[in-house]
Amino acid sequence: MRSPLVKPDPKLDLVLVREVDVPVELVWEAWTTPESVKQWFCPKPWTVTECEIDLRPGGIFRTVMRSPEGQEHPNIGCYLDIVPNRRLIFTDTLLPGFRPSPNPFFTGALQLEPTATGTRYTAMAIHGDEATCKNHEEMGFYGGWSTVLDQLVAHIKASMH
Amino acid sequence: MRSPLVKPDPKLDLVLVREVDVPVELVWEAWTTPESVKQWFCPKPWTVTECEIDLRPGGIFRTVMRSPEGQEHPNIGCYLDIVPNRRLIFTDTLLPGFRPSPNPFFTGALQLEPTATGTRYTAMAIHGDEATCKNHEEMGFYGGWSTVLDQLVAHIKASMH
Repeated sequence: MRSPLVKPDPKLDLVLVREVDVPVELVWEAWTTPESVKQWFCPKPWTVTECEIDLRPGGIFRTVMRSPEGQEHPNIGCYLDIVPNRRLIFTDTLLPGFRPSPNPFFTGALQLEPTATGTRYTAMAIHGDEATCKNHEEMGFYGGWSTVLDQLVAHIKASMH
Repeated sequence: MRSPLVKPDPKLDLVLVREVDVPVELVWEAWTTPESVKQWFCPKPWTVTECEIDLRPGGIFRTVMRSPEGQEHPNIGCYLDIVPNRRLIFTDTLLPGFRPSPNPFFTGALQLEPTATGTRYTAMAIHGDEATCKNHEEMGFYGGWSTVLDQLVAHIKASMH
């Protein structure tokens, strides 16, 4: 038996686990479709103005987030591991085509499990050292990632009607 | 049509292309089996004293190279993309489990194509900036990677008899 690939280290990683009442297939779609990502991926009143997705290992995952004052924050990275409806791993440590990035920060891992009432949602931020992890936590990881999950669920429910 | 994932940039990447007279399957085996890697992976009289391989995306690729004077140089990274007998991509920019590395250097990409007489062998070192690429070239990339390819071919031929 191979060991699970992604094992969180409490000193280096931040992990959000929540149960949500929407199906895994719609959570997956919301994470992997540019038009959907734009609807929920950063806490309002910030917006996502651009999103580019090439859903294969080494393929681009790029967003531009805009502050209410109009300041733009581009993020670029690539996908690493893609298991539809179950696991999505991406990083800004590598640019598209697996080229080392000049501004590495973290690897993101999303894990989805179907439950009786919806989805068990696990989002993890994986860092290379304790200082970067602490910095990410102080930037508001838990509040931010929880808020965008609320936005994701609201977006899915709005689309279902 | 999706574009090819790995496109070398002449300012950032180093590429070795050679035709060798051994079959792709044996080149693949030599790259992906720890006992084989130890036989050829660094230019003699340096040796590879340890090699660990978990051949899946995010799985470990670790070697320890030892100088003739006994100084040890550990290298650790993970695999990114694995297409048996055709393509093997790995990086030291991410540790096993896709954790960002404290010492990122480059992504390596091996591409193999069968030919009438053996294998067209393309080995690429992909860097994040020009200075790192130049440094790698000055460390002796072309001579070193060509020498280890000679060692790889000799290892395969010795194993065939």
